[in-house]
Amino acid sequence: MSGDATSPVSGVTQLFQILRDGVPRTRAELAKSTGLARSTIAARVDELMRMGLVTPIAETVSTGGRPPSQFALNPASRLVLAADIGASHATVAVADLSGTTLAEHSEPLDVTLGPVPVLTWLVDNAAALVEGMGRSPADLAAIGVGIPGPVEHSTGQPVNPPIMPGWDRFDVPGWVRQHLDVPVLVDNDVNIMALGESAVAWPGVEHLIFVKVATGIGAGVISGGALQRGAQGIAGDIGHVRVARGAGVPCHCGNQGCLEALASGPAIARALTAQGVPAENGNDVIALVKRGNVDAIQAVRQAGRDIGEVLTTAVSLINPSVIAVGGSMSRVGEHLIAGVREVVYTRSTPLATEHLAIVASAAGQKAAVIGASMLAIEHALSPATLATLVTA
Amino acid sequence: MSGDATSPVSGVTQLFQILRDGVPRTRAELAKSTGLARSTIAARVDELMRMGLVTPIAETVSTGGRPPSQFALNPASRLVLAADIGASHATVAVADLSGTTLAEHSEPLDVTLGPVPVLTWLVDNAAALVEGMGRSPADLAAIGVGIPGPVEHSTGQPVNPPIMPGWDRFDVPGWVRQHLDVPVLVDNDVNIMALGESAVAWPGVEHLIFVKVATGIGAGVISGGALQRGAQGIAGDIGHVRVARGAGVPCHCGNQGCLEALASGPAIARALTAQGVPAENGNDVIALVKRGNVDAIQAVRQAGRDIGEVLTTAVSLINPSVIAVGGSMSRVGEHLIAGVREVVYTRSTPLATEHLAIVASAAGQKAAVIGASMLAIEHALSPATLATLVTA
Repeated sequence: MSGDATSPVSGVTQLFQILRDGVPRTRAELAKSTGLARSTIAARVDELMRMGLVTPIAETVSTGGRPPSQFALNPASRLVLAADIGASHATVAVADLSGTTLAEHSEPLDVTLGPVPVLTWLVDNAAALVEGMGRSPADLAAIGVGIPGPVEHSTGQPVNPPIMPGWDRFDVPGWVRQHLDVPVLVDNDVNIMALGESAVAWPGVEHLIFVKVATGIGAGVISGGALQRGAQGIAGDIGHVRVARGAGVPCHCGNQGCLEALASGPAIARALTAQGVPAENGNDVIALVKRGNVDAIQAVRQAGRDIGEVLTTAVSLINPSVIAVGGSMSRVGEHLIAGVREVVYTRSTPLATEHLAIVASAAGQKAAVIGASMLAIEHALSPATLATLVTA
Repeated sequence: MSGDATSPVSGVTQLFQILRDGVPRTRAELAKSTGLARSTIAARVDELMRMGLVTPIAETVSTGGRPPSQFALNPASRLVLAADIGASHATVAVADLSGTTLAEHSEPLDVTLGPVPVLTWLVDNAAALVEGMGRSPADLAAIGVGIPGPVEHSTGQPVNPPIMPGWDRFDVPGWVRQHLDVPVLVDNDVNIMALGESAVAWPGVEHLIFVKVATGIGAGVISGGALQRGAQGIAGDIGHVRVARGAGVPCHCGNQGCLEALASGPAIARALTAQGVPAENGNDVIALVKRGNVDAIQAVRQAGRDIGEVLTTAVSLINPSVIAVGGSMSRVGEHLIAGVREVVYTRSTPLATEHLAIVASAAGQKAAVIGASMLAIEHALSPATLATLVTA
């Protein structure tokens, strides 16, 4: 490729950014969309095939004469790991480069055990999954990890995570890399759920808010087609916004009237218990609603209104086309979302709500793992990463 | 350039995206940062000089031996127009490609006259400015226009603008292009003010909220380094978010308790008048404050608190590092911002406010015109636009 005035590395990565969507294309189509010479395309496709990232696709329809060869992403060429570390439960999964989950393992795991026991569980189970598939750790391209707290994006370190004692400023990527030598991407759990929801149900939607309602309440914000983490990596941290109904209600953060102190699973359970309807946690609330308990239904609907109050401001600020509500409390069904809709559609401006969908998460319990896969794949297939793999 | 495997057009634009920051660079530096061959760099720099976009820069320090030639953006090669159409005042300016304003004309102009009289004023005064500088309309690369209402980004058309009767869905770019045949970029006034503030005072800051407090209240949101317009182009439209103090206060939008109904210039004037301190508008309020009227000072401070209430949610959602407060009411001085700070620093989480600056707009009355210039320059120097200008 010595007659080529452009860096072959940037040329190969440029070509791959076109092919990575999985749509098969001929060399002629690639030449047309890049402006590159046919001979250059041929050499670069060969390099991508040598790396295993691109594979020839068989023609299904004969057009008469010699069919042109097509090429597309080979999703099986590399693997990524995806981990979802929750407050009391953890999941690790193996996915291919298209984001399809190939193997998965979940079990109860207390995040307050601290980083070393939790991450040891992660790398041990990841290794077991990869081995169980008959694949090698050398096939791993990256690992995406979601944790239930704020993360400094540039370092992947948790920063003052309120429910993760012992994790503050722990070097998660550095520790994991001692055991699995691949790039480690760490993000807040709600952010990766937003990525997962976006990939599963709303590909191409540029402005989306994912709201997680569970033990805590938080949001992942996609604006302009990109996950927005903000200056300290805590964009979307809406759990501690004050709501109108909150006067005098104490929050574990030290403030009063926070959304999380009124509308989270434990908050609804506390309010019901005070009313004489015993509930220990969010799961009890869900069970009461499923049994048709009117007090529980009303409490959940009111929680939806509280969340809607905060989301009304979010709608004005971000002007999303989708609000997806997920997290364990979303299993309660339509009552929660009905409360959200009631307030947002009443209070937001008509132009902002005319095309706004407020819906239950389609990815559901899979949102986090799929999002963690996406985080890993996005890194693994990025031009910068790929450039390090190209020979020549 | 026939030995070059990459499209010469994309190569020239790639090179220009490096040079457009105005920093002088040698051919060797350009070769190093692009991976392109020295001969290719030389040909492309020649093409950019032929287009007038790039100019040789004289060395100021001799390093001994033959000094290497340096090249940089030639800001004088083309002009852009910038227009700021307000409710009752309009400005049109001519700027160079670095965003420096070269000539400007302002006068009272009522936007309710409708699009044809207002835009006629704009094109007439723009033509006069360009002619007065001894330049030709052929030197114009683009025009950026800010208007006081929501704009559909893809078409540049106002959509249901509440204070602009006759403008709804008017084809602003189409009409202007009949008189000035250059690309026309139209955006909401607060969005262009955010761009202007960012360019003047916070270059490189990725997460910034600009709040305009005037006859209305609105925000421009920069997240991830990009202006975020949202799904319908109305992101940042915070004037109609309900605030706690607003119960029963009617807003012109038909709702109650909107921020704009309590904290805008006219709203403060109304409240003061009802208290027995006569004020007709925001300017009267500012005059009262400047004279030390305690009622006016307290009213402005409370307006700041109301704005802070909404911004607290914005801080949680967007996690900005800067909130800049501008618009005509910001001339009232520190009392308004003191109210904003009081609430935001009390209610937001410590992590979100630790590095958050809440400041008066540095661009001040110039924010809109500078932002409109930036909008035009961004378009004029974009790879897509440049590609249409490259020969070969």
